[in-house]
Amino acid sequence: MWPKRTDAIVTNTQVTLVQIDNYGPWTVKPSPRREADLQTLQSRLYADFAQLFGNRGGYTFFARFDNMIAITNGIDRQEHALVQESIGNRYPVTVSFSIGTGSTPAGALEVATEQLQDAGSAQDAGRREILRGEPIPGPERTDEDVEIAHFDVNDATGTYTDELHAFDSFVHIEGGYYALMRHLHGEHGALAFFVGGDNVIAVGPGLSAPEYEAAIEHVEREAGVDLKVGVGRGADPREAGLQAKYALERCREDGTRVEGAPPAVERP
Amino acid sequence: MWPKRTDAIVTNTQVTLVQIDNYGPWTVKPSPRREADLQTLQSRLYADFAQLFGNRGGYTFFARFDNMIAITNGIDRQEHALVQESIGNRYPVTVSFSIGTGSTPAGALEVATEQLQDAGSAQDAGRREILRGEPIPGPERTDEDVEIAHFDVNDATGTYTDELHAFDSFVHIEGGYYALMRHLHGEHGALAFFVGGDNVIAVGPGLSAPEYEAAIEHVEREAGVDLKVGVGRGADPREAGLQAKYALERCREDGTRVEGAPPAVERP
Amino acid sequence: MWPKRTDAIVTNTQVTLVQIDNYGPWTVKPSPRREADLQTLQSRLYADFAQLFGNRGGYTFFARFDNMIAITNGIDRQEHALVQESIGNRYPVTVSFSIGTGSTPAGALEVATEQLQDAGSAQDAGRREILRGEPIPGPERTDEDVEIAHFDVNDATGTYTDELHAFDSFVHIEGGYYALMRHLHGEHGALAFFVGGDNVIAVGPGLSAPEYEAAIEHVEREAGVDLKVGVGRGADPREAGLQAKYALERCREDGTRVEGAPPAVERP
Amino acid sequence: MWPKRTDAIVTNTQVTLVQIDNYGPWTVKPSPRREADLQTLQSRLYADFAQLFGNRGGYTFFARFDNMIAITNGIDRQEHALVQESIGNRYPVTVSFSIGTGSTPAGALEVATEQLQDAGSAQDAGRREILRGEPIPGPERTDEDVEIAHFDVNDATGTYTDELHAFDSFVHIEGGYYALMRHLHGEHGALAFFVGGDNVIAVGPGLSAPEYEAAIEHVEREAGVDLKVGVGRGADPREAGLQAKYALERCREDGTRVEGAPPAVERP
Repeated sequence: MWPKRTDAIVTNTQVTLVQIDNYGPWTVKPSPRREADLQTLQSRLYADFAQLFGNRGGYTFFARFDNMIAITNGIDRQEHALVQESIGNRYPVTVSFSIGTGSTPAGALEVATEQLQDAGSAQDAGRREILRGEPIPGPERTDEDVEIAHFDVNDATGTYTDELHAFDSFVHIEGGYYALMRHLHGEHGALAFFVGGDNVIAVGPGLSAPEYEAAIEHVEREAGVDLKVGVGRGADPREAGLQAKYALERCREDGTRVEGAPPAVERP
Repeated sequence: MWPKRTDAIVTNTQVTLVQIDNYGPWTVKPSPRREADLQTLQSRLYADFAQLFGNRGGYTFFARFDNMIAITNGIDRQEHALVQESIGNRYPVTVSFSIGTGSTPAGALEVATEQLQDAGSAQDAGRREILRGEPIPGPERTDEDVEIAHFDVNDATGTYTDELHAFDSFVHIEGGYYALMRHLHGEHGALAFFVGGDNVIAVGPGLSAPEYEAAIEHVEREAGVDLKVGVGRGADPREAGLQAKYALERCREDGTRVEGAPPAVERP
Repeated sequence: MWPKRTDAIVTNTQVTLVQIDNYGPWTVKPSPRREADLQTLQSRLYADFAQLFGNRGGYTFFARFDNMIAITNGIDRQEHALVQESIGNRYPVTVSFSIGTGSTPAGALEVATEQLQDAGSAQDAGRREILRGEPIPGPERTDEDVEIAHFDVNDATGTYTDELHAFDSFVHIEGGYYALMRHLHGEHGALAFFVGGDNVIAVGPGLSAPEYEAAIEHVEREAGVDLKVGVGRGADPREAGLQAKYALERCREDGTRVEGAPPAVERP
Repeated sequence: MWPKRTDAIVTNTQVTLVQIDNYGPWTVKPSPRREADLQTLQSRLYADFAQLFGNRGGYTFFARFDNMIAITNGIDRQEHALVQESIGNRYPVTVSFSIGTGSTPAGALEVATEQLQDAGSAQDAGRREILRGEPIPGPERTDEDVEIAHFDVNDATGTYTDELHAFDSFVHIEGGYYALMRHLHGEHGALAFFVGGDNVIAVGPGLSAPEYEAAIEHVEREAGVDLKVGVGRGADPREAGLQAKYALERCREDGTRVEGAPPAVERP
């Protein structure tokens, strides 16, 4: 099932680019730091962003870990400043934020990237705790600003985890993800991220059901990985994302490949 | 510089496959759980493994997060049991471990995978806290059992982070990683993992300098990403990994592409 | 300096009693769990509450760890439910919340305690994730609802840490805290909590400067510990608490024992 | 039941005093940091020590949080250095360690305190990451070096949690703890710590059953709190502490007040 939409409905995504200040040099000065500690630092920092933005309705993707990407519709500058201060109070590194907005997620991220690059190099020791960009003003926000598409692999456990060797199944999933991220980015300006297991979450600019079908077919052709997707819309990522999950459950129950959550329908 | 090696030197890698028990079903029962919480759970669980195995000389890679891969030379069954119990005491999920060993990392992981698959499906609610496999006996361990190769991208900050849009630089790094992981796995039975930033760490079966050169050239041809690598050997991943980092620093200083840490040389 | 106050100004504290469900039995079933894991679980759970309520302007005190006390002015029922769900998604235990309000903090906590006791025993396995009580309605909130008093020991480092044996200095600080908590609770219905180092934070019902002086003198007489205090008022604990900290800095600079932050004055 | 002991059995406790370097000044510079962040920092730091020492058989007590006390029998200087480095890699603060040993825990802590005070003030900005003192040499360690006594309140849930107002029950438990810590320290050179709930863990110098009885009676007289205790012995705190927990379970089952774990008996 796919909800009817008018052509006029577009997304308005607010993206925050999170960059650890001067991280590369820090990891090797005065001498290379132990990898186990760096991994712990990075993943806990990410977990904190998942909560700090997540508590305010946002989604955070780890991406490269030193550069994370958050969808932050509904989170204002003052809250960004609080999050930035909280990290600075608790970690040996600081972070810079740049907020971009646009009708496509990729466009919003481009704005954010340019603002941060304008402020100086990521490895400039003097560039610390930058906060740039303007959130979407409250009155301009709508209940359909954010589109989240939640993909997973059909019967990943039966087909991969329980059958293939662990690294082969990992290579397969990576391959499917890599094909999907390039396709959605190149064709639609969507941003897709691996989020663990056999799951990929994409932030989209308002794709149609046939466009999602085409993306799934592209991945099947290119990487031999068989996906399905649930799509949700909302005022913020939390709302859109939860709808996407319920839509994906319907795919599972009904054996369908693409399900969209009608914005007006109550969730169970 | 590359240390001389006799043909007789081979690796003996001990791999632990870590699998969250029945995780997929748990994430959607009784209804889909919020993504921010799942992300926090997964990344903190990984951070704990990084410390729990790391404190004992091991390396943990997040891989798919629900299936993590640890290199655990020197960690015995009793310590595995303690780690397993500690996780069970502190998380809403439990984990199973399977320990494999072999002269190539991929071979060791195959052993581990098969043992775990024999114990039942990853989504069998009754299969909990499995602990299978035998570590390398102490007397058989040597100071050169583990080979760690630490790759990064040449001038990633100047070429990508400060120049490309954030997602483009992310796509490039993903592409380089994907090409590298398949090449090292297919040609050599090595296991390579993205570890954040522009870094990939591979666990190898004892490659020669020309083989590392060839891998770097393959990635440049296939994905247009320009890598360098430092390689270390040791009795456990911590030791081998720290040597690899020092070797990588030498690449940086000397402008070389492949540096190996002579096992007998003292670190600064 | 102490700001002038009219008699009409009273506090309106919103207290949330946080109780881990059925925790005692869980710690010993099926057999006693390792203390290091319980300590890790408790302190991380507390750290999460510090952030989850703290991000919304609240303060959390660890108290007994299995029963924590949070000051939650400005946090509504829906946000409490989100916090409760987030904990349930990430820990092996669940938590119950009871929200009480009143003109004294102790009175508010009594309301909260009674509501939770009415819902069943803390060790009733069937009593899970209770959420009781009503927050202060938005229109009734004022900018002076919360009073935070931040105490510390005069020259604790010079007098204790650098001079006494570590346990003696710890006994002294415990003694000072124990005298202060009973005095403030018995005389004023305030709730005081040790928060680390030589710091105690009290949530008060609107004490006068002489009443704070009297409390400090009481502690000096009873436990021989020499305190000073900064007091702040605000719409929520974050605001009141930060003012209290600035007031305490003025004590330090000016050598005074009691400083109150005038509510209307801008912080530096 | 109380195991027979010969007079010759004495404890040999290894205590590590953990001190955050220059913490007080850091919390207020350049301006007071938010309390929620400080609480999160302190409790996560403590959780990490609980794991870092706990993974090696040790126990950590939060004490004042800026000064923590760990029992570290079996943990050598090199492991202390690794823990210290790991904290420095992941937190905005560093820590100093001082290791003391002695036949009483208090004596061991005195040695540790003096060594650290000799190295400079806790608020000397130039005093960082001190590591002083010598662990017990391996050949001198025995299976009975550490004595752990685990106290809890008889029917705390029925008597306090479900009956008293939350703060009253908290005051009672604090009062019982305060009486116990002073008695055990003053009379026996034992170190007692509140560990959450209604639990206190003491590290003892080898008390007899009547001495534990006397301590319980003292607390009943002084604070009106009714305790019981299980006592264990072992080569390290983990082993002694687990035995103490099993002994406490026997108190619960048999309605006794003091139970000692015979060192030679296998745990279930």
